[in-house]
Amino acid sequence: MSSYLKNGTVVTDTVPSIVSYGTAVGRMEGEGPLGSCFDYVSEDSGFGENTWEKAESRLQQHAFEQALLRGSIAESDISFVFAGDLLNQCTGSAYSMRNNGLRFVGLYGACSTMAESLAMAGLFIDNGIGAYCAALTSSHFCSAERQFRFPETYGGQRPPTAQWTATASGCAIVGDHADPPYIRAVTIGTIIDMGIKDANNMGAAMAPAAYDTLRSHFTNTGTCPEDYDMILTGDLGLVGSEILRDLFLQDGVTLGERYNDCGLMIFDREKQDVHAGGSGCGCSASVLCGHILGRVQKGELKNVLFAATGALMSPTLVQQGESIPGISHAVHISSESI
Amino acid sequence: MSSYLKNGTVVTDTVPSIVSYGTAVGRMEGEGPLGSCFDYVSEDSGFGENTWEKAESRLQQHAFEQALLRGSIAESDISFVFAGDLLNQCTGSAYSMRNNGLRFVGLYGACSTMAESLAMAGLFIDNGIGAYCAALTSSHFCSAERQFRFPETYGGQRPPTAQWTATASGCAIVGDHADPPYIRAVTIGTIIDMGIKDANNMGAAMAPAAYDTLRSHFTNTGTCPEDYDMILTGDLGLVGSEILRDLFLQDGVTLGERYNDCGLMIFDREKQDVHAGGSGCGCSASVLCGHILGRVQKGELKNVLFAATGALMSPTLVQQGESIPGISHAVHISSESI
Repeated sequence: MSSYLKNGTVVTDTVPSIVSYGTAVGRMEGEGPLGSCFDYVSEDSGFGENTWEKAESRLQQHAFEQALLRGSIAESDISFVFAGDLLNQCTGSAYSMRNNGLRFVGLYGACSTMAESLAMAGLFIDNGIGAYCAALTSSHFCSAERQFRFPETYGGQRPPTAQWTATASGCAIVGDHADPPYIRAVTIGTIIDMGIKDANNMGAAMAPAAYDTLRSHFTNTGTCPEDYDMILTGDLGLVGSEILRDLFLQDGVTLGERYNDCGLMIFDREKQDVHAGGSGCGCSASVLCGHILGRVQKGELKNVLFAATGALMSPTLVQQGESIPGISHAVHISSESI
Repeated sequence: MSSYLKNGTVVTDTVPSIVSYGTAVGRMEGEGPLGSCFDYVSEDSGFGENTWEKAESRLQQHAFEQALLRGSIAESDISFVFAGDLLNQCTGSAYSMRNNGLRFVGLYGACSTMAESLAMAGLFIDNGIGAYCAALTSSHFCSAERQFRFPETYGGQRPPTAQWTATASGCAIVGDHADPPYIRAVTIGTIIDMGIKDANNMGAAMAPAAYDTLRSHFTNTGTCPEDYDMILTGDLGLVGSEILRDLFLQDGVTLGERYNDCGLMIFDREKQDVHAGGSGCGCSASVLCGHILGRVQKGELKNVLFAATGALMSPTLVQQGESIPGISHAVHISSESI
């Protein structure tokens, strides 16, 4: 049974384990600095499908299958799937999971979905609800750009603050095993809107939410940044990351080198034309599942605080002149159960 | 600590209580057969706002406030909010909850969201995660019609199978109290797509999912329809309800008069021009919270099986010729804790 502390923070008691994980990405992500970490890299951005939406569903299926494969887990052993994505009505997830018989809890947390789904999966397992729970999300550059901004063929100019939606998916499977990585605690975030109205500056819109969630997590658990080897946001990009550092500096807290952002890790900003960095649900999902979890498993990293961030905007509301609310959820992942 | 049975069904052990509930609806819903049940009926479909999207957020806030008021619960006592809606990127919920400091778990289950959120809230409280959890959802006729079909001013013809999106919101607050209604069990559904491609026939698309979830619930808990005073789907409407009855008849099971559908209850199909009935997240939410929970509280209804249903379609995928997946989640609500 989990222990609720306060202000969104829950500590696990049985310490659920991330028993497996899988990733799938597009060609450009495969050519990035983490390319060798990913299980499946497709040369075909259509993933064999004839629409971008179906391509995203297929991409997500690949990540899910890789996670099952790595853990030698049968699909039918998954008790609950927690999944969501950026597409309208979360069809990336709904169509990837249709007719497979799995029990499906649809989430919407924009690019915070990997932390949201992992938090839910962890809490379910911590309380004995199911044998294995999957946390799953995806994003696809082409489906996202058309939906949120412009179709690629329009050739719109991207400002320097813009981030590049990663074509990527990650899946983590949580179970009641005795092996690391463990989910030690989660902090569910609150929706913060500081008035940013620029849909090409998501980092600035999300940074205050990341700050609030991380600060809540530190306060509620009585920890500080130094208690973690790595504090990982996703996906604030260059602009949002600097704002986050500044917000903590105002409290006299230096995040330092232990802090990084998935949006800054997945692409090489010098060689790949991604402006302020990567974004999309699949960015933090694939970086976490492809690059981080294995290192925690081996004990190279002991304590990781993973705080995925989401901009809860819609093109409709941005066009109506509304500002963009952000949210961030945090999950403390550890190589040690105590 | 909850008991996981199998195939999506979880039985609560501490038997969480729905300690309060609130509703808000538009004028047409107020003129319907359940009009007197709702806490707040607005004569203004804009709810004082200048866009339909903001109107929906305001509507949702009204339902939330009514639930806090009825239960004499301070907003700050809500540990977690589980919410979602039909709007792209679930902005109805995100904008209604922004900057209020509450911990927010965004869900997407289309019109199944009231059951999904109530299930999550019930399981959190059953496992001691938080003091109070809110389950909240909404829909607005004008925001939904423009987004999913056509703007109202277009004057498109509606076929007889079409349902009318209710302008309505419902909120249930779950806590660890000793008073009914109690949440006794939940069954999380699986995504079923039987090939329906008509976005004006959602009932047919969702009925197989409702059948699967209800059948799973009966099997997993060892119960039958006769064990419930009321089996309530939402929102299959006329077409979907008849399909559901037929599917059970093929198993030799008669749902009979204990079966009803929120989409058939919220409007008077003879006097109100709603074709196959009501729909939208807010339809089942407002019928449950406005009409049903009070009767369970008084003991007029002993056991209600509430199975909200969602069509996980997007206009993009329907226009691409894809079929419409459905999902349904069930919550067993009872006046008795054992």
